[in-house]
Amino acid sequence: VTRVLDAIAFDGDDTLWHNEGLFSMTQERFRALLADWVSPEELDARLLETERENVAVYGYGVKGFTLSMIESAIEVTNGNVDADTIYRILSFGKDQLRHPVELLPGVEATIDALAGRYRLMLITKGDLFDQESKIARSGLADHFDVIEVVHEKEPDIYRRVLRRNTIDPAQFLMVGNSVRSDVLPVLELGGRAALVPYHLTWELEVAEPPREHDGYWELEHISQVPELVARLDGDG
Amino acid sequence: VTRVLDAIAFDGDDTLWHNEGLFSMTQERFRALLADWVSPEELDARLLETERENVAVYGYGVKGFTLSMIESAIEVTNGNVDADTIYRILSFGKDQLRHPVELLPGVEATIDALAGRYRLMLITKGDLFDQESKIARSGLADHFDVIEVVHEKEPDIYRRVLRRNTIDPAQFLMVGNSVRSDVLPVLELGGRAALVPYHLTWELEVAEPPREHDGYWELEHISQVPELVARLDGDG
Repeated sequence: VTRVLDAIAFDGDDTLWHNEGLFSMTQERFRALLADWVSPEELDARLLETERENVAVYGYGVKGFTLSMIESAIEVTNGNVDADTIYRILSFGKDQLRHPVELLPGVEATIDALAGRYRLMLITKGDLFDQESKIARSGLADHFDVIEVVHEKEPDIYRRVLRRNTIDPAQFLMVGNSVRSDVLPVLELGGRAALVPYHLTWELEVAEPPREHDGYWELEHISQVPELVARLDGDG
Repeated sequence: VTRVLDAIAFDGDDTLWHNEGLFSMTQERFRALLADWVSPEELDARLLETERENVAVYGYGVKGFTLSMIESAIEVTNGNVDADTIYRILSFGKDQLRHPVELLPGVEATIDALAGRYRLMLITKGDLFDQESKIARSGLADHFDVIEVVHEKEPDIYRRVLRRNTIDPAQFLMVGNSVRSDVLPVLELGGRAALVPYHLTWELEVAEPPREHDGYWELEHISQVPELVARLDGDG
Protein backbone atom coordinates (compact mmCIF):
# COMPACT_ATOMS: atom_id res chain seq x y z
CA VAL A 1 0.00 0.00 0.00
CA THR A 2 1.47 3.32 -1.03
CA ARG A 3 0.52 6.05 1.38
CA VAL A 4 -0.34 9.52 0.22
CA LEU A 5 1.61 11.18 3.00
CA ASP A 6 5.24 10.76 3.94
CA ALA A 7 5.98 13.82 6.07
CA ILE A 8 3.78 16.02 8.27
CA ALA A 9 5.12 19.38 9.38
CA PHE A 10 3.81 21.62 12.14
CA ASP A 11 4.29 25.32 12.58
CA GLY A 12 5.40 26.33 16.09
CA ASP A 13 4.05 29.72 17.19
CA ASP A 14 0.27 29.66 17.76
CA THR A 15 0.07 26.11 16.37
CA LEU A 16 1.95 24.12 19.01
CA TRP A 17 2.33 26.82 21.65
CA HIS A 18 0.87 30.21 22.52
CA ASN A 19 2.69 33.14 20.94
CA GLU A 20 0.47 35.91 19.64
CA GLY A 21 -1.22 35.92 23.04
CA LEU A 22 2.11 36.90 24.58
CA PHE A 23 2.55 39.70 22.07
CA SER A 24 -0.97 40.88 22.96
CA MET A 25 -0.13 40.76 26.65
CA THR A 26 3.03 42.80 26.09
CA GLN A 27 1.18 45.25 23.89
CA GLU A 28 -1.46 45.66 26.59
CA ARG A 29 1.27 46.57 29.08
CA PHE A 30 2.70 48.97 26.51
CA ARG A 31 -0.71 50.67 26.11
CA ALA A 32 -1.07 51.04 29.87
CA LEU A 33 2.45 52.43 30.15
CA LEU A 34 1.74 55.19 27.63
CA ALA A 35 -1.90 55.78 28.59
CA ASP A 36 -1.14 59.32 29.77
CA TRP A 37 0.30 60.20 26.39
CA VAL A 38 -1.82 58.52 23.79
CA SER A 39 -5.00 56.52 23.28
CA PRO A 40 -4.69 52.74 22.84
CA GLU A 41 -6.01 53.00 19.27
CA GLU A 42 -3.50 55.62 18.26
CA LEU A 43 -0.64 53.72 19.87
CA ASP A 44 -1.64 50.46 18.20
CA ALA A 45 -1.79 52.16 14.81
CA ARG A 46 1.61 53.77 15.29
CA LEU A 47 3.16 50.50 16.46
CA LEU A 48 1.75 48.52 13.56
CA GLU A 49 3.06 51.09 11.09
CA THR A 50 6.49 51.00 12.75
CA GLU A 51 6.55 47.19 12.64
CA ARG A 52 5.56 47.23 9.00
CA GLU A 53 8.46 49.57 8.22
CA ASN A 54 10.94 47.65 10.34
CA VAL A 55 10.21 44.06 9.37
CA ALA A 56 12.57 44.34 6.37
CA VAL A 57 15.46 45.26 8.65
CA TYR A 58 14.58 43.40 11.89
CA GLY A 59 12.71 40.34 10.64
CA TYR A 60 10.26 38.67 13.04
CA GLY A 61 10.48 38.19 16.75
CA VAL A 62 10.42 39.75 20.18
CA LYS A 63 13.67 41.72 19.90
CA GLY A 64 12.49 43.54 16.80
CA PHE A 65 9.10 44.07 18.47
CA THR A 66 10.80 45.60 21.50
CA LEU A 67 12.84 47.95 19.30
CA SER A 68 9.66 48.92 17.44
CA MET A 69 7.85 49.63 20.72
CA ILE A 70 10.69 51.95 21.81
CA GLU A 71 10.65 53.73 18.45
CA SER A 72 6.86 54.13 18.61
CA ALA A 73 7.00 55.42 22.19
CA ILE A 74 9.45 58.13 21.17
CA GLU A 75 7.35 59.09 18.17
CA VAL A 76 3.95 59.26 19.84
CA THR A 77 5.37 61.42 22.64
CA ASN A 78 7.21 63.71 20.21
CA GLY A 79 10.45 62.78 21.90
CA ASN A 80 9.19 63.55 25.40
CA VAL A 81 9.09 60.03 26.78
CA ASP A 82 11.42 59.61 29.76
CA ALA A 83 14.17 57.03 30.14
CA ASP A 84 12.35 55.13 32.89
CA THR A 85 9.51 54.44 30.49
CA ILE A 86 11.95 53.16 27.87
CA TYR A 87 13.51 50.97 30.55
CA ARG A 88 10.09 49.51 31.30
CA ILE A 89 9.66 48.66 27.62
CA LEU A 90 13.01 46.85 27.66
CA SER A 91 11.80 44.83 30.63
CA PHE A 92 8.51 43.98 28.88
CA GLY A 93 10.53 42.51 26.01
CA LYS A 94 12.70 40.47 28.37
CA ASP A 95 9.63 39.23 30.25
CA GLN A 96 8.15 38.00 26.99
CA LEU A 97 11.37 36.27 25.93
CA ARG A 98 11.59 34.53 29.29
CA HIS A 99 7.91 33.61 29.46
CA PRO A 100 7.25 29.87 29.88
CA VAL A 101 6.27 28.01 26.73
CA GLU A 102 2.63 26.96 27.02
CA LEU A 103 1.54 24.17 24.72
CA LEU A 104 -1.89 24.50 23.15
CA PRO A 105 -4.54 21.93 24.17
CA GLY A 106 -4.35 18.62 22.32
CA VAL A 107 -0.85 19.17 20.96
CA GLU A 108 0.89 16.37 22.81
CA ALA A 109 -1.79 13.76 22.03
CA THR A 110 -1.77 14.76 18.35
CA ILE A 111 2.00 14.48 18.04
CA ASP A 112 1.97 11.17 19.90
CA ALA A 113 -0.69 9.79 17.57
CA LEU A 114 1.40 10.54 14.48
CA ALA A 115 4.94 9.89 15.74
CA GLY A 116 6.59 6.79 14.31
CA ARG A 117 4.01 6.53 11.52
CA TYR A 118 5.10 9.62 9.60
CA ARG A 119 8.20 11.76 9.43
CA LEU A 120 7.30 14.60 11.74
CA MET A 121 8.74 18.04 11.17
CA LEU A 122 8.65 21.34 12.97
CA ILE A 123 9.00 24.30 10.60
CA THR A 124 8.92 27.56 12.47
CA LYS A 125 9.62 31.14 11.48
CA GLY A 126 11.31 33.85 13.43
CA ASP A 127 14.27 34.69 15.55
CA LEU A 128 16.62 31.69 15.67
CA PHE A 129 17.73 32.09 19.28
CA ASP A 130 14.23 32.63 20.60
CA GLN A 131 12.76 29.79 18.52
CA GLU A 132 15.48 27.33 19.56
CA SER A 133 14.89 28.32 23.14
CA LYS A 134 11.13 27.78 22.82
CA ILE A 135 11.59 24.43 21.07
CA ALA A 136 13.87 23.27 23.88
CA ARG A 137 11.46 24.49 26.58
CA SER A 138 8.41 22.97 24.81
CA GLY A 139 9.61 19.45 25.62
CA LEU A 140 8.56 18.40 22.11
CA ALA A 141 11.95 18.41 20.35
CA ASP A 142 12.48 14.65 20.61
CA HIS A 143 9.20 13.94 18.83
CA PHE A 144 10.34 15.60 15.61
CA ASP A 145 12.55 13.98 13.00
CA VAL A 146 13.39 17.35 11.47
CA ILE A 147 13.37 20.82 13.03
CA GLU A 148 13.85 23.83 10.80
CA VAL A 149 13.84 27.48 11.85
CA VAL A 150 13.44 29.67 8.78
CA HIS A 151 13.58 33.44 8.47
CA GLU A 152 10.60 33.63 6.14
CA LYS A 153 8.00 31.11 4.97
CA GLU A 154 8.12 31.51 1.21
CA PRO A 155 7.79 28.85 -1.52
CA ASP A 156 11.55 28.81 -2.23
CA ILE A 157 12.36 28.27 1.40
CA TYR A 158 9.88 25.40 1.76
CA ARG A 159 11.30 23.96 -1.47
CA ARG A 160 14.81 24.01 -0.03
CA VAL A 161 13.68 22.40 3.23
CA LEU A 162 11.81 19.61 1.42
CA ARG A 163 14.66 19.01 -1.02
CA ARG A 164 17.29 18.69 1.63
CA ASN A 165 15.13 16.21 3.49
CA THR A 166 14.23 14.37 0.23
CA ILE A 167 10.50 14.88 0.65
CA ASP A 168 8.16 14.91 -2.35
CA PRO A 169 5.81 17.93 -1.98
CA ALA A 170 2.92 15.69 -3.09
CA GLN A 171 3.50 13.61 0.05
CA PHE A 172 3.84 16.58 2.37
CA LEU A 173 1.22 18.08 4.70
CA MET A 174 1.80 21.35 6.53
CA VAL A 175 -0.26 22.17 9.64
CA GLY A 176 -0.33 25.73 10.92
CA ASN A 177 -2.35 28.77 11.91
CA SER A 178 -1.29 31.19 9.18
CA VAL A 179 -2.83 31.20 5.71
CA ARG A 180 0.00 33.42 4.49
CA SER A 181 2.90 31.42 5.95
CA ASP A 182 1.70 27.85 6.41
CA VAL A 183 -0.87 27.37 3.66
CA LEU A 184 -0.35 29.42 0.47
CA PRO A 185 3.39 28.73 -0.11
CA VAL A 186 2.91 24.98 0.50
CA LEU A 187 -0.01 24.73 -1.93
CA GLU A 188 2.08 26.61 -4.48
CA LEU A 189 4.69 23.84 -4.32
CA GLY A 190 2.11 21.12 -4.82
CA GLY A 191 1.85 20.17 -1.15
CA ARG A 192 -1.19 20.03 1.14
CA ALA A 193 -2.03 22.28 4.05
CA ALA A 194 -4.36 22.22 7.04
CA LEU A 195 -5.21 25.47 8.78
CA VAL A 196 -5.79 25.33 12.52
CA PRO A 197 -6.75 28.90 13.38
CA TYR A 198 -5.54 30.61 16.53
CA HIS A 199 -7.89 33.13 18.11
CA LEU A 200 -5.49 35.98 17.33
CA THR A 201 -3.67 36.73 14.09
CA TRP A 202 -1.00 39.40 13.74
CA GLU A 203 -2.20 41.88 11.12
CA LEU A 204 0.88 41.37 8.96
CA GLU A 205 -0.05 37.66 8.68
CA VAL A 206 -3.63 38.10 7.51
CA ALA A 207 -4.46 36.58 4.09
CA GLU A 208 -7.46 35.17 2.25
CA PRO A 209 -7.87 31.38 2.69
CA PRO A 210 -7.90 29.35 -0.59
CA ARG A 211 -11.20 27.66 0.20
CA GLU A 212 -11.62 26.20 -3.31
CA HIS A 213 -8.27 24.38 -3.31
CA ASP A 214 -8.60 20.61 -2.93
CA GLY A 215 -5.32 20.32 -1.02
CA TYR A 216 -6.53 22.68 1.70
CA TRP A 217 -8.49 21.95 4.86
CA GLU A 218 -9.72 24.17 7.68
CA LEU A 219 -9.80 22.43 11.01
CA GLU A 220 -11.20 23.68 14.27
CA HIS A 221 -8.64 22.05 16.47
CA ILE A 222 -5.21 20.43 16.13
CA SER A 223 -6.61 17.17 17.51
CA GLN A 224 -8.44 16.73 14.19
CA VAL A 225 -5.16 16.31 12.32
CA PRO A 226 -4.78 12.52 12.87
CA GLU A 227 -8.30 11.97 11.52
CA LEU A 228 -7.53 14.06 8.42
CA VAL A 229 -4.31 12.13 7.89
CA ALA A 230 -6.08 8.80 8.24
CA ARG A 231 -8.71 9.89 5.73
CA LEU A 232 -6.03 10.98 3.24
CA ASP A 233 -4.24 7.68 3.62
CA GLY A 234 -7.40 5.67 3.15
CA ASP A 235 -7.42 4.00 6.53
CA GLY A 236 -9.89 6.30 8.21
CA VAL B 1 43.30 7.50 -3.26
CA THR B 2 41.31 8.15 -0.08
CA ARG B 3 41.43 11.79 0.85
CA VAL B 4 41.69 12.93 4.41
CA LEU B 5 39.15 15.70 3.93
CA ASP B 6 35.60 15.47 2.66
CA ALA B 7 34.00 18.73 3.81
CA ILE B 8 35.45 22.16 4.57
CA ALA B 9 33.35 24.64 6.50
CA PHE B 10 33.85 28.37 6.86
CA ASP B 11 32.57 30.66 9.55
CA GLY B 12 30.89 33.83 8.21
CA ASP B 13 31.37 36.85 10.46
CA ASP B 14 34.99 38.05 10.50
CA THR B 15 36.10 35.03 8.46
CA LEU B 16 34.39 35.69 5.12
CA TRP B 17 33.18 39.23 5.73
CA HIS B 18 33.78 42.10 8.13
CA ASN B 19 31.57 42.07 11.22
CA GLU B 20 33.30 42.99 14.45
CA GLY B 21 34.60 46.11 12.67
CA LEU B 22 30.97 47.20 12.22
CA PHE B 23 30.23 46.63 15.90
CA SER B 24 33.32 48.71 16.72
CA MET B 25 32.14 51.45 14.40
CA THR B 26 28.71 51.48 16.03
CA GLN B 27 30.22 51.41 19.49
CA GLU B 28 32.43 54.38 18.56
CA ARG B 29 29.30 56.32 17.56
CA PHE B 30 27.69 55.27 20.84
CA ARG B 31 30.70 56.58 22.80
CA ALA B 32 30.57 59.91 20.97
CA LEU B 33 26.82 60.17 21.55
CA LEU B 34 27.23 59.80 25.32
CA ALA B 35 30.54 61.64 25.63
CA ASP B 36 28.93 64.40 27.74
CA TRP B 37 27.71 61.83 30.25
CA VAL B 38 30.41 59.23 30.61
CA SER B 39 33.97 58.37 29.62
CA PRO B 40 34.49 55.89 26.78
CA GLU B 41 36.11 53.42 29.19
CA GLU B 42 33.23 53.52 31.65
CA LEU B 43 30.67 53.19 28.87
CA ASP B 44 32.51 50.25 27.30
CA ALA B 45 32.67 48.46 30.64
CA ARG B 46 28.96 49.05 31.30
CA LEU B 47 28.00 47.88 27.82
CA LEU B 48 30.11 44.73 28.04
CA GLU B 49 28.56 43.88 31.39
CA THR B 50 25.07 44.45 29.99
CA GLU B 51 25.80 42.27 26.95
CA ARG B 52 27.14 39.53 29.21
CA GLU B 53 23.92 39.59 31.24
CA ASN B 54 21.70 39.75 28.18
CA VAL B 55 23.25 37.14 25.93
CA ALA B 56 21.22 34.38 27.61
CA VAL B 57 17.97 36.14 26.74
CA TYR B 58 18.85 37.93 23.47
CA GLY B 59 21.44 35.62 21.89
CA TYR B 60 23.93 37.14 19.43
CA GLY B 61 23.42 39.85 16.88
CA VAL B 62 22.78 43.48 16.18
CA LYS B 63 19.24 43.66 17.57
CA GLY B 64 20.35 42.40 20.97
CA PHE B 65 23.35 44.74 20.80
CA THR B 66 21.05 47.70 20.12
CA LEU B 67 18.83 46.78 23.06
CA SER B 68 21.92 46.46 25.27
CA MET B 69 23.17 49.88 24.14
CA ILE B 70 19.82 51.44 25.09
CA GLU B 71 19.85 49.71 28.47
CA SER B 72 23.44 50.85 29.11
CA ALA B 73 22.66 54.42 28.09
CA ILE B 74 19.82 54.58 30.59
CA GLU B 75 21.99 53.12 33.33
CA VAL B 76 25.09 55.27 32.87
CA THR B 77 22.95 58.44 32.85
CA ASN B 78 20.94 57.34 35.89
CA GLY B 79 17.80 57.52 33.83
CA ASN B 80 18.48 61.04 32.57
CA VAL B 81 19.17 60.25 28.94
CA ASP B 82 16.66 61.95 26.62
CA ALA B 83 14.49 60.27 24.02
CA ASP B 84 16.34 61.83 21.09
CA THR B 85 19.51 60.10 22.22
CA ILE B 86 17.67 56.76 22.43
CA TYR B 87 16.31 57.42 18.95
CA ARG B 88 19.87 57.92 17.69
CA ILE B 89 20.87 54.56 19.17
CA LEU B 90 17.98 52.90 17.32
CA SER B 91 19.25 54.46 14.11
CA PHE B 92 22.82 53.25 14.79
CA GLY B 93 21.47 49.71 15.03
CA LYS B 94 19.52 50.03 11.78
CA ASP B 95 22.56 51.52 10.03
CA GLN B 96 24.61 48.52 11.08
CA LEU B 97 21.95 46.03 9.94
CA ARG B 98 21.73 47.74 6.56
CA HIS B 99 25.49 48.14 6.13
CA PRO B 100 26.86 46.56 2.92
CA VAL B 101 28.55 43.19 3.34
CA GLU B 102 32.27 43.59 2.72
CA LEU B 103 34.16 40.42 1.90
CA LEU B 104 37.60 40.05 3.45
CA PRO B 105 40.60 40.01 1.06
CA GLY B 106 41.31 36.66 -0.56
CA VAL B 107 37.93 35.12 0.29
CA GLU B 108 36.62 34.73 -3.24
CA ALA B 109 39.86 33.22 -4.60
CA THR B 110 40.02 30.79 -1.67
CA ILE B 111 36.45 29.59 -2.13
CA ASP B 112 36.98 29.28 -5.89
CA ALA B 113 40.12 27.19 -5.36
CA LEU B 114 38.24 24.68 -3.19
CA ALA B 115 34.82 24.61 -4.85
CA GLY B 116 34.00 21.41 -6.70
CA ARG B 117 36.86 19.54 -5.00
CA TYR B 118 35.36 19.46 -1.50
CA ARG B 119 31.92 19.84 -0.02
CA LEU B 120 31.96 23.47 1.04
CA MET B 121 29.91 24.59 4.00
CA LEU B 122 29.11 27.89 5.64
CA ILE B 123 28.41 27.53 9.36
CA THR B 124 27.61 30.85 10.92
CA LYS B 125 26.28 31.85 14.31
CA GLY B 126 23.86 34.58 15.18
CA ASP B 127 20.59 36.16 14.32
CA LEU B 128 18.91 34.13 11.56
CA PHE B 129 17.34 37.02 9.69
CA ASP B 130 20.51 39.13 9.75
CA GLN B 131 22.75 36.19 8.80
CA GLU B 132 20.50 35.10 5.92
CA SER B 133 20.48 38.67 4.71
CA LYS B 134 24.28 38.88 4.87
CA ILE B 135 24.72 35.53 3.12
CA ALA B 136 22.45 36.70 0.30
CA ARG B 137 24.24 40.04 0.00
CA SER B 138 27.71 38.41 0.12
CA GLY B 139 27.20 36.90 -3.33
CA LEU B 140 28.82 33.68 -2.03
CA ALA B 141 25.72 31.57 -1.38
CA ASP B 142 25.95 29.59 -4.63
CA HIS B 143 29.49 28.44 -3.81
CA PHE B 144 28.39 26.51 -0.73
CA ASP B 145 26.84 23.06 -0.77
CA VAL B 146 25.49 23.49 2.75
CA ILE B 147 24.62 26.67 4.66
CA GLU B 148 23.77 26.43 8.33
CA VAL B 149 22.90 29.28 10.67
CA VAL B 150 23.17 28.11 14.27
CA HIS B 151 22.28 29.90 17.46
CA GLU B 152 25.39 28.72 19.29
CA LYS B 153 28.57 26.93 18.23
CA GLU B 154 28.77 24.09 20.70
CA PRO B 155 29.94 20.48 20.17
CA ASP B 156 26.38 19.11 20.13
CA ILE B 157 25.30 21.57 17.51
CA TYR B 158 28.29 20.80 15.27
CA ARG B 159 27.55 17.09 15.81
CA ARG B 160 23.97 17.56 14.64
CA VAL B 161 25.05 19.54 11.56
CA LEU B 162 27.65 16.94 10.57
CA ARG B 163 25.27 14.05 11.17
CA ARG B 164 22.47 15.46 9.09
CA ASN B 165 24.91 16.06 6.25
CA THR B 166 26.51 12.59 6.75
CA ILE B 167 30.00 13.99 7.34
CA ASP B 168 32.59 12.07 9.34
CA PRO B 169 34.19 14.51 11.82
CA ALA B 170 37.59 12.98 10.96
CA GLN B 171 37.13 14.26 7.41
CA PHE B 172 35.93 17.70 8.43
CA LEU B 173 37.91 20.95 8.58
CA MET B 174 36.46 24.10 10.11
CA VAL B 175 37.96 27.49 9.20
CA GLY B 176 37.15 30.50 11.34
CA ASN B 177 38.36 33.39 13.44
CA SER B 178 37.12 32.29 16.85
CA VAL B 179 38.98 29.82 19.05
CA ARG B 180 35.91 29.46 21.24
CA SER B 181 33.34 28.94 18.46
CA ASP B 182 35.21 27.60 15.43
CA VAL B 183 38.11 25.64 16.92
CA LEU B 184 37.50 24.10 20.35
CA PRO B 185 34.10 22.46 19.74
CA VAL B 186 35.28 21.00 16.40
CA LEU B 187 38.43 19.51 17.93
CA GLU B 188 36.29 18.04 20.70
CA LEU B 189 34.30 16.10 18.07
CA GLY B 190 37.45 14.74 16.44
CA GLY B 191 37.51 17.24 13.58
CA ARG B 192 40.23 19.65 12.48
CA ALA B 193 40.26 23.42 12.70
CA ALA B 194 42.22 26.28 11.18
CA LEU B 195 42.17 29.65 12.89
CA VAL B 196 42.37 32.72 10.68
CA PRO B 197 42.46 35.57 13.17
CA TYR B 198 40.58 38.80 12.62
CA HIS B 199 42.17 41.96 13.99
CA LEU B 200 39.32 42.40 16.48
CA THR B 201 37.74 39.82 18.77
CA TRP B 202 34.62 40.43 20.86
CA GLU B 203 35.57 39.93 24.49
CA LEU B 204 32.91 37.25 25.00
CA GLU B 205 34.60 35.19 22.24
CA VAL B 206 38.13 35.22 23.68
CA ALA B 207 39.63 31.80 24.50
CA GLU B 208 43.04 30.18 24.75
CA PRO B 209 44.17 28.52 21.49
CA PRO B 210 44.98 24.78 21.75
CA ARG B 211 48.48 25.16 20.28
CA GLU B 212 49.57 21.62 21.16
CA HIS B 213 46.71 19.91 19.33
CA ASP B 214 47.75 18.24 16.08
CA GLY B 215 44.40 18.92 14.40
CA TYR B 216 44.81 22.66 14.87
CA TRP B 217 46.55 25.25 12.67
CA GLU B 218 46.95 28.98 12.98
CA LEU B 219 47.06 30.72 9.64
CA GLU B 220 47.78 34.35 8.94
CA HIS B 221 45.39 34.70 6.06
CA ILE B 222 42.43 32.82 4.56
CA SER B 223 44.32 32.44 1.28
CA GLN B 224 46.56 29.90 3.05
CA VAL B 225 43.65 27.45 3.43
CA PRO B 226 44.00 25.75 0.01
CA GLU B 227 47.70 25.09 0.72
CA LEU B 228 46.85 23.56 4.12
CA VAL B 229 44.17 21.41 2.52
CA ALA B 230 46.55 20.22 -0.21
CA ARG B 231 49.16 19.33 2.42
CA LEU B 232 46.60 17.37 4.46
CA ASP B 233 45.49 15.49 1.39
CA GLY B 234 49.04 14.67 0.35
CA ASP B 235 49.01 16.48 -2.94
CA GLY B 236 50.78 19.63 -1.85
